[in-house]
Amino acid sequence: MAGGGAAASALSSPWRALLQRALDANAHLKHSTFFQLATVSGGGRPANRTVVFRGFLEHCDKIQINTDARSNKISEIKEWPLGEICWYFTDSWEQFRISGIIDVIDGSSLDPAKLQLREKAWFASSVKSRSQYLGPCPGLPVANDDHIKDVHVDASAGPVDAYCLLTLDPEKVRLG
Amino acid sequence: MAGGGAAASALSSPWRALLQRALDANAHLKHSTFFQLATVSGGGRPANRTVVFRGFLEHCDKIQINTDARSNKISEIKEWPLGEICWYFTDSWEQFRISGIIDVIDGSSLDPAKLQLREKAWFASSVKSRSQYLGPCPGLPVANDDHIKDVHVDASAGPVDAYCLLTLDPEKVRLG
Repeated sequence: MAGGGAAASALSSPWRALLQRALDANAHLKHSTFFQLATVSGGGRPANRTVVFRGFLEHCDKIQINTDARSNKISEIKEWPLGEICWYFTDSWEQFRISGIIDVIDGSSLDPAKLQLREKAWFASSVKSRSQYLGPCPGLPVANDDHIKDVHVDASAGPVDAYCLLTLDPEKVRLG
Repeated sequence: MAGGGAAASALSSPWRALLQRALDANAHLKHSTFFQLATVSGGGRPANRTVVFRGFLEHCDKIQINTDARSNKISEIKEWPLGEICWYFTDSWEQFRISGIIDVIDGSSLDPAKLQLREKAWFASSVKSRSQYLGPCPGLPVANDDHIKDVHVDASAGPVDAYCLLTLDPEKVRLG
């Protein structure tokens, strides 16, 4: 999780403190960083899948999610960038519903600042996690990466084409 | 879960067996029957919340969910009845994505057969669970009902106005 120090804490939204408390209370569960991201696909069909929280962008409340640029959801989200996260904590029985606009940052972005964020998020991921973007098919959207093996990743190499960073900018957050 | 016996099993969809296996493997976790239901609200905004699996309707694959008729989602779903369930099993690392049409069955239904399903689902719920529909406000959508007390429910009384049964008819089921 992105840190921040006293200055950043003072500026952050009130719900951030509650969310951090829930993350701490459920930290012993590996799935505590998993949540469900709902978007709307073609024809107004809801789409819903489990993704992994990759921390906040520094100095703001945007939520980072890693995903595979080859998955269907990328084109769907580019077309209709609204999302709602439902983050349910199974040990403390708390639910956070976080809706906002999603920004898709893949290698085709023309904004150097965004490409830098993508690179930073890439290096913040484990080498094992990065290796799932090297396979021929989009990986599962969940963090159970035990099936990944025999893929060599150069730890110093930058993001591959298949790696895509999503950021969700919270507009409305509801608890319960 | 609705039972069925040999005849019903023979007729059921292949994913039902996989889902049942996941439910069995995760049965020691109270939250194994919780999933996230995504729908689309006004203006094409995705909405996502945790709800509780209340079994299948008999002799079919329709998934039952109890909800409060006073919650926002009821009018939203009546207007746009598409839903996608994301059901993630935290111990076996399995994900089921189930999309389909949702039927809202509240006390205003004019179909006697549907009213009968609603009544049956009401009596299949625990008395404690029923009591949450007697409070002045919609309850939380999750099953942590420890906050419910001092509400007297006549165990033989039929469904109250606030009680609403949703059924989702699976059209497409994806694993992983």
